[in-house]
Amino acid sequence: MATEYSDHVESADKQPRTARGLKTKRKLLDAAALEFGEKGFHEASITGITQRAGTALGSFYTYFDSKDELFSALVKDMSARVKSHAASAMTKWQDALEREKLALESFMNFAREHKEIYRIIDEAEFVDPDSYRAHYEATAARILERLKEGAKLGDLRNDLEEAHAWAIMGMNVFLGLRYGIWSEEKSSAEIADIAKDILARGISAK
Amino acid sequence: MATEYSDHVESADKQPRTARGLKTKRKLLDAAALEFGEKGFHEASITGITQRAGTALGSFYTYFDSKDELFSALVKDMSARVKSHAASAMTKWQDALEREKLALESFMNFAREHKEIYRIIDEAEFVDPDSYRAHYEATAARILERLKEGAKLGDLRNDLEEAHAWAIMGMNVFLGLRYGIWSEEKSSAEIADIAKDILARGISAK
Repeated sequence: MATEYSDHVESADKQPRTARGLKTKRKLLDAAALEFGEKGFHEASITGITQRAGTALGSFYTYFDSKDELFSALVKDMSARVKSHAASAMTKWQDALEREKLALESFMNFAREHKEIYRIIDEAEFVDPDSYRAHYEATAARILERLKEGAKLGDLRNDLEEAHAWAIMGMNVFLGLRYGIWSEEKSSAEIADIAKDILARGISAK
Repeated sequence: MATEYSDHVESADKQPRTARGLKTKRKLLDAAALEFGEKGFHEASITGITQRAGTALGSFYTYFDSKDELFSALVKDMSARVKSHAASAMTKWQDALEREKLALESFMNFAREHKEIYRIIDEAEFVDPDSYRAHYEATAARILERLKEGAKLGDLRNDLEEAHAWAIMGMNVFLGLRYGIWSEEKSSAEIADIAKDILARGISAK
């Protein structure tokens, strides 16, 4: 994906050095989210992005070498924002199942406000497979860490492993798609309660 | 996506009328799965597909109007094959949780044998969004039907609804990606047992 002269890693000299620079880079990332979300990677253009951002074309190249590099930076940025959005909803004092509920509720609210997130992460499977995989591996690792903490505190069973984290992540991603992106007929809290209830006692009648 | 002269629906006169025709169409679908899976929709070519299928270019146009139409037919075909693969693993006499286990195990085995399925279904989000949505809606509807049957038989709680089906589907899709496509370090049965156990009793210590 990366061109001959870009190595897909943001070079140190491309990092903003001033508050104004940071703001411009943020504007470019936000504009890129809209442009990629609306048009998809292939149809999106650098000029489309700078126009949305209201910045000069030169500013783009101050921070990014190529459309590919911007896309990768955007996937990492979205991944980091989902993470911090969820983190801000949780505290260490909550019961482990309540934390999982809040993580999903927070993710669904984020997805409702940033509906382009699914399209961008999903397109990364094709445009930047390493970032796609890194996003899900990091998310699953965070969930697993919470499950281990919950087991230590006595809230959760102590035989939980990576597959449990992937199962929870899958539940969250599909509930977010169905009830966050495709329709908002139910509140995020209502859906997150259903997921919490599955984790609390399963679906068996016994 | 559909061109001016194709309406994205297979026209009746393009259906094979002979066993030989059916076999040719099957060959084209199997070749398309490999070509789209390997190259992605945009890079895939009709000649690449007919070469893999070992058929003449003319055969392609006997059954499909365009690459778009073949792609849509392939998504529907894969969706139907996943369905019948799972159905063949289940009987009405199994406990409802055991049926969910077998559905996941069967899906994972199918995905291991047809690793291109994720890439093709996932690319449908961009190439043929209607088929993408139809695939997941149909899958969730099937799961929900099983949950309702399970409730009727007394195996499952009788307050299960659509969101439970989407949660289970999400679990299955992500467990299939992680342990069916990315690595086969654990058996499908082992992973399906973990999912069944979540559905049986949740992950709480209490």
